[in-house]
Amino acid sequence: MDHLAQVLVQLFAVLLAAKVGDEVFKRIGQPPVIGEILGGVLVGPAVLGLYEVNAETALFAEIGVVLLLFQVGVETRIGDLLRVGATAAGAGVLGVVLPMGGGIAAGWLLGYPIEVSVFLGAALTATSVGITSRVLADLGAVRTVSGRVILGAAVIDDVMAMLILAFAAGLAAGTVTAAEIGTLVGLAVAFIGIVLLVGTRVLRRRPSLLTDPVFAETPFLPGMILMLGLAALAAIIGLAAIIGAFLAGMVVGESSEKHALEEEVAPVAAFFTPFFFGFIGAQVDVGTFTDPGTLALLVGITLLAVATKFIGSFVGALRAGVARAVVIGWGMVPRGEVGIVVAGLGLSAGAIGGQLYSVVVGMAILTTLLVPPFLPALLARAEPATSDQEPDSPAT
Amino acid sequence: MDHLAQVLVQLFAVLLAAKVGDEVFKRIGQPPVIGEILGGVLVGPAVLGLYEVNAETALFAEIGVVLLLFQVGVETRIGDLLRVGATAAGAGVLGVVLPMGGGIAAGWLLGYPIEVSVFLGAALTATSVGITSRVLADLGAVRTVSGRVILGAAVIDDVMAMLILAFAAGLAAGTVTAAEIGTLVGLAVAFIGIVLLVGTRVLRRRPSLLTDPVFAETPFLPGMILMLGLAALAAIIGLAAIIGAFLAGMVVGESSEKHALEEEVAPVAAFFTPFFFGFIGAQVDVGTFTDPGTLALLVGITLLAVATKFIGSFVGALRAGVARAVVIGWGMVPRGEVGIVVAGLGLSAGAIGGQLYSVVVGMAILTTLLVPPFLPALLARAEPATSDQEPDSPAT
Repeated sequence: MDHLAQVLVQLFAVLLAAKVGDEVFKRIGQPPVIGEILGGVLVGPAVLGLYEVNAETALFAEIGVVLLLFQVGVETRIGDLLRVGATAAGAGVLGVVLPMGGGIAAGWLLGYPIEVSVFLGAALTATSVGITSRVLADLGAVRTVSGRVILGAAVIDDVMAMLILAFAAGLAAGTVTAAEIGTLVGLAVAFIGIVLLVGTRVLRRRPSLLTDPVFAETPFLPGMILMLGLAALAAIIGLAAIIGAFLAGMVVGESSEKHALEEEVAPVAAFFTPFFFGFIGAQVDVGTFTDPGTLALLVGITLLAVATKFIGSFVGALRAGVARAVVIGWGMVPRGEVGIVVAGLGLSAGAIGGQLYSVVVGMAILTTLLVPPFLPALLARAEPATSDQEPDSPAT
Repeated sequence: MDHLAQVLVQLFAVLLAAKVGDEVFKRIGQPPVIGEILGGVLVGPAVLGLYEVNAETALFAEIGVVLLLFQVGVETRIGDLLRVGATAAGAGVLGVVLPMGGGIAAGWLLGYPIEVSVFLGAALTATSVGITSRVLADLGAVRTVSGRVILGAAVIDDVMAMLILAFAAGLAAGTVTAAEIGTLVGLAVAFIGIVLLVGTRVLRRRPSLLTDPVFAETPFLPGMILMLGLAALAAIIGLAAIIGAFLAGMVVGESSEKHALEEEVAPVAAFFTPFFFGFIGAQVDVGTFTDPGTLALLVGITLLAVATKFIGSFVGALRAGVARAVVIGWGMVPRGEVGIVVAGLGLSAGAIGGQLYSVVVGMAILTTLLVPPFLPALLARAEPATSDQEPDSPAT
């Protein structure tokens, strides 16, 4: 079988398995996204071995989550984010400080050297907003106060996580200078600020800009170009690609013909996102956890990850009210692919070993699986108004 | 810059360049698909070097042409193909015999060993129907007699080309048995026959089959799963993946909700196909042709490729009338990515050298660039009836 045939088989297997999982979970009334992940586990290396983690499948997964955040960005207006800015900042900052501190403390208690402890802290820190976004989108709750605070906090969280990671990598390599950290902060803030303020303003002044080219009857293809470009730029300066995609969505969402755009993005995202959730599932290596010591470490680290992130974001978001703060804290819990990427960096930098790597990957997947079952009920309590209606002015 | 960032930059560069090329060529009234290819040349390794040929970009290109043929398949009914069956068979068979014979004869005249001559014949043989499909689709001419004969002939052409290639590869490796060739023929015919006859019949009896799952409001996602599955199967048995995708489109096209399906496939195809045309452009290595001997060989081989394919398919299609036979012969001329794949196989099998490889790749691209400028006028003369109307019963 030649290489192309192998890759086509893998893409076929994961798309089929994810949609079968989706179908089964819809029929038994459980979150379909969990079904998609379990479908990925089934065809992944741990069970059937039809799907493997390689350059092509990783790219399809990445484009899947990039499209998901682009779609969420299109639904998000910059004013919506700014109005919940203070709450989002509180949830983002405290939701970073607690897991970071908890990870370092746990590493110290376990007797790891300082650079390992810092890596563990970094791996516990970064929220992956992909799964929460999907649940919010499924429930039509992207524009509720809770939804907007989560998205704003995720952007702040990602910037801080990037800085912590740069610091941890520098520590592992033996060098880290204040100038480097300063440059990173400056680049990240400039990127986000320029895209959001200049980009949305240009389009608001001329909403037909994206449909001016002859090739573009709708803003769809210009939007896809901008999405790839800003995702690439974000990745170049060290942010997650999904942050760039989210910002691109917010800019393009100011366009006229927004409805046509959303209709055309939807099938592209529907095609790609199962690869993302299936890919998360494919990374589960059940075999590692037959060792009782590793299993105990996994349980402990996962509890620590859930508790520190939930408490940090909950306390930081309290000004939005207790019910909303619960949703926000819980929505920030998944570490998903970001945790896996950080663990991979730590492994290749020689900072963490194979056992801790497996544990961090397991933690990232467990935190991702834990969130969807409870989020809908928590959200219904916190945001009784139906979706897509502008809720009352938030308490910021 | 990490690997993901690099790939995102490449995808961004080729999508932007292809759409700018599309825009420029639309404005100057030339075929937009040529603009997309030239955009690919511009950002490719030969000029700016922003785009390179690697596993990920090759996959995006492949999925692009797979989606293109799937889309064409959805528009094609099996009855339409069978009604032009005899004409398509004539165009397909003669359009294979002449280039194959011409290639072997040219190799003999140039003094190449027999296995090199057979590889050259194989590289001249296989039509790539991607570019012609795109032009037909742009003009709404997929369902005209000429369009249907071209698609049917392309399927026959691909089966024969696969057999010739298996024969050439066996010759280069020193072994080729009648049993192997027989197995290949049996597999290919069984695959195409079963998919077309059983697949379309099952869906015609139960057109709602693909929307029965809860996850599928339209046949779009089940269609994408079937497309990947049949493309993979075709590739496994040695056919081009696009043949499987074309058959999948024909099956899914029998579904109810066909209109919703077409509306959802369109943006996915619009997103992916520029990567295919950009990728063709990126493979142009202008530097090789500064050597006068290589350039002369390129011109000679290209003229041979155009003449033998055009005359073969023209004569084979004459029963459809002269004007249509001209369209059909011309529409079969592009070798595109299939020629490049054959050349690559010959290179890695050690059957052909670097110079002949460059010449075959150059021939594949030139035949692809030659077709779109003339096809619309030829088609307007042969098929005066407007698109999507069922033309008169063909002369078969």
